[in-house]
Amino acid sequence: MLSLIERGGDLARRVGELTFAPSRAVDHVVGITGAPGAGKSTLTDRLIGAARADGGQVGVLAIDPSSPFSGGAILGDRIRMQGHALDEGVFIRSMATRGSQGGLALAAPEAIRVLAAVGMNLVLVETVGVGQVEVEVAGEADTTLVVVTPGWGDSVQASKAGLLEVADIFVVNKADRDGAAETRRDLENMLDINPAMGDWRPPVLLTSAATGAGIDALWSAVIEHRAHLEATGDLAIRRDRRLVDEMGRILVHLVERDVRALEGSEGFEAVKAELLGRRLDPYQAAARLLETGRS
Amino acid sequence: MLSLIERGGDLARRVGELTFAPSRAVDHVVGITGAPGAGKSTLTDRLIGAARADGGQVGVLAIDPSSPFSGGAILGDRIRMQGHALDEGVFIRSMATRGSQGGLALAAPEAIRVLAAVGMNLVLVETVGVGQVEVEVAGEADTTLVVVTPGWGDSVQASKAGLLEVADIFVVNKADRDGAAETRRDLENMLDINPAMGDWRPPVLLTSAATGAGIDALWSAVIEHRAHLEATGDLAIRRDRRLVDEMGRILVHLVERDVRALEGSEGFEAVKAELLGRRLDPYQAAARLLETGRS
Repeated sequence: MLSLIERGGDLARRVGELTFAPSRAVDHVVGITGAPGAGKSTLTDRLIGAARADGGQVGVLAIDPSSPFSGGAILGDRIRMQGHALDEGVFIRSMATRGSQGGLALAAPEAIRVLAAVGMNLVLVETVGVGQVEVEVAGEADTTLVVVTPGWGDSVQASKAGLLEVADIFVVNKADRDGAAETRRDLENMLDINPAMGDWRPPVLLTSAATGAGIDALWSAVIEHRAHLEATGDLAIRRDRRLVDEMGRILVHLVERDVRALEGSEGFEAVKAELLGRRLDPYQAAARLLETGRS
Repeated sequence: MLSLIERGGDLARRVGELTFAPSRAVDHVVGITGAPGAGKSTLTDRLIGAARADGGQVGVLAIDPSSPFSGGAILGDRIRMQGHALDEGVFIRSMATRGSQGGLALAAPEAIRVLAAVGMNLVLVETVGVGQVEVEVAGEADTTLVVVTPGWGDSVQASKAGLLEVADIFVVNKADRDGAAETRRDLENMLDINPAMGDWRPPVLLTSAATGAGIDALWSAVIEHRAHLEATGDLAIRRDRRLVDEMGRILVHLVERDVRALEGSEGFEAVKAELLGRRLDPYQAAARLLETGRS
């Protein structure tokens, strides 16, 4: 089903309809994002272990926008989670782009619904980098972990990456390295001056995924954040908002498809000739094309 | 004019029309991209120096998608180029997002035309990171430099970053550090197996922007690539293709604006209620909305 979802088209649509509004939704969707090399896959592996110890079924989506030009999933992340390869209560899947650059943002929520429909209690969504698509996908989670490493805490880099706003929990991983305390302090300072903060202040936790240090405290914080969302009613609000956002993305996708279908038509070629002759600027050309498409 | 372009709206449109098809186009647009911390700003500063020594007027756009949530330009890059602050033949400008996430990709080509219209011979476009927007903006250049640092040459990271396909010249900056030769070799190996390569094989050059080592050779390669594009006719082809791509992005932007205008309308709220009641899935809801908008 996930392969169909990834590929798109009519069968993907059929899977999407069958898995929408299942009798049971997934209990908790946890996003794990951060710069490449921060140890997200090893951390994900540790969280799988913690969740399994609590008895839940765990689905993992390793989201890889990969090259916007050549596509293709990289399997390194899967390899790093081999510790759970034989556990029937764990399902791990890499997902790559689906044609368009926005494809992953479209496929991810559908994939989460598939995992819910087959009985997963927890879905971990791990993204590869900190680009626009990753931040968008991270927004699909109930709880978003932002993973950084010591030395990363330079506030310019942090605000550039745009991660301050999506984090429900900050994880300073590889905390056995020099500078972990400074990175934690920098993040706390940034949180102190963040005007957008609601009634949940993201904790900043130190872990070493490689040794397992700090994982218990992290898992407790994940569960605590879920309880907070439930108690405040934010869980339902977040999920409803995600559904409306998803509809908006699909709408734009459908319209883009219609626009692309114009290419090669007589009207398109005529406008393109005006553009390349520099008689229309790109805005005038686009407006002309829009009129053509509507008439 | 750049501020108006950045802000968008009617005045931006007027500037865009006035600066389209000017009597003289800019001679050369050079894009500089690569991961944060690779030393791009210092390298840009060196290239300004090289271009000024040749007598050209230089415009610099430091493109910063910054946070997709909070917007705002970071001025660090500008500060690093202060060496040319008093040179009247150099104009340096940071650009941040313009409302929508795709705003920068829309504003960048217009900004380049503004710089051409006021007499710049060379425009350097420096992007902050390696996300989707940056790669898109880097594609606006005649010649794209991809800047990496020693140790970066891990092929998995390279293909993840999607930079192999956009590079006309690879720069291994901070080449006085350990591992520069290995990084160069890794990049050369990747180029050996790149099926997409045309008749220009991207050179891999070692520089130290901080000391100036390797800058002359880099500047020569930039000029050589320009001559290659001219000789093969690729310069005109690239510029025409960019113009058509720009029109496509504008078209999608205009349609998205129309779609957003639906929000709050009676039809939109009715469909949203069906969606949140889980009676329609997001695709069904989007299709319903599309019908509503067309009727």
